[in-house]
Amino acid sequence: MIVGYQTYLDLIPEFLAGKEVIASQMMKEVDRCRKALALAAEGRQVALVSGGDPGIYAMAGLVFEMAREQNLCVAIEVIPGIAALNACAARLGAPLMHDFAAISLSDLLTPWAKIERRLEAAASADFVVVIYNPKSKKRAEHIVRAREILLAHRPPETPVGIVTAATRENERIVLTTLEKMLASEIDMQTTIIVGNSMTFAWQGFMVTPRGYAAKYAL
Amino acid sequence: MIVGYQTYLDLIPEFLAGKEVIASQMMKEVDRCRKALALAAEGRQVALVSGGDPGIYAMAGLVFEMAREQNLCVAIEVIPGIAALNACAARLGAPLMHDFAAISLSDLLTPWAKIERRLEAAASADFVVVIYNPKSKKRAEHIVRAREILLAHRPPETPVGIVTAATRENERIVLTTLEKMLASEIDMQTTIIVGNSMTFAWQGFMVTPRGYAAKYAL
Repeated sequence: MIVGYQTYLDLIPEFLAGKEVIASQMMKEVDRCRKALALAAEGRQVALVSGGDPGIYAMAGLVFEMAREQNLCVAIEVIPGIAALNACAARLGAPLMHDFAAISLSDLLTPWAKIERRLEAAASADFVVVIYNPKSKKRAEHIVRAREILLAHRPPETPVGIVTAATRENERIVLTTLEKMLASEIDMQTTIIVGNSMTFAWQGFMVTPRGYAAKYAL
Repeated sequence: MIVGYQTYLDLIPEFLAGKEVIASQMMKEVDRCRKALALAAEGRQVALVSGGDPGIYAMAGLVFEMAREQNLCVAIEVIPGIAALNACAARLGAPLMHDFAAISLSDLLTPWAKIERRLEAAASADFVVVIYNPKSKKRAEHIVRAREILLAHRPPETPVGIVTAATRENERIVLTTLEKMLASEIDMQTTIIVGNSMTFAWQGFMVTPRGYAAKYAL
């Protein structure tokens, strides 16, 4: 049987046909996960549907955390998917050709001081930086601070890609710079990729070279 | 038409039927890319097939680097896929639930000093670390040094997942620790995930909690 958030289930009708489905509109992820595990513990075979890749900042971890807390013995398999970082990178061109750090700006479950420390480390070691959860109504200042930290280590003209709702109907893609990035709309569905010292913008694409051009005649 | 490495094309016969295919056994990636771009510049519609996600340490960047060098005007679209980090994380459990850094240990196109600086930064800021290209015949010592750097910041019992040839026939999965990781076989097809300070091993899985258990009753 299938357990999932209604919005995601609507995207995969072909997988639901003939199956028992528990769709939740408003149920929180913790409750959805509890329901799926309870059914599995009863012996049911349950697919818990997640958006993106369940293994990257998503539901897979909660499943294991909860199963451990409840001391459940159920077989668990994680099926990977296209995470926001894969999709957004593809829409922007090729910004993740070299070492990168993924950092969530949500301080709901992580102290902000730790997030700043990670931003500082990633900025100083020239990682491309993928920013998850850049902004919500309650956290409008986090992205402002993140940009400050990055600007202390990178030039203002560093390419920045801002992708909202990647591959969905309401997709928005903006290629901008560290200097100007705050002029673009950023919301809960946005992922931001900040280039490293090598990243360039070319014909509307954002590209982090691996360095072939320095080594081979292209 | 389709251009790709024979090994990858063999995995997708259903997409090749009825199409012109240029398969290369031994052609280097630079040559394959050059061929695909030359055909596109002639007006052909070309799919350049890559393993994993072409956008993560893979072919997409080379396409853009070369198109820019050659000043080509061709339409380019990148289709994302399941990168090694997505696949390996899924096979291990849920190690990438929180901020992580992806670092390649290949110094073919990157100075080793820069790689060490990134390892140091990621280790000190408590990122989960995904290590690409941990070892080749010519670079057996890089993973030894990477482990030293990580051990300076993390306890020896930190969980480490070693996945070779994820989802393929010869897949090998080892869940071990920073202390013991070098006892496992590591080769060119291996990706290594090193946990952060919160990562735990549970029933053969490697899990980095997001912190729900501290916030909610699970």
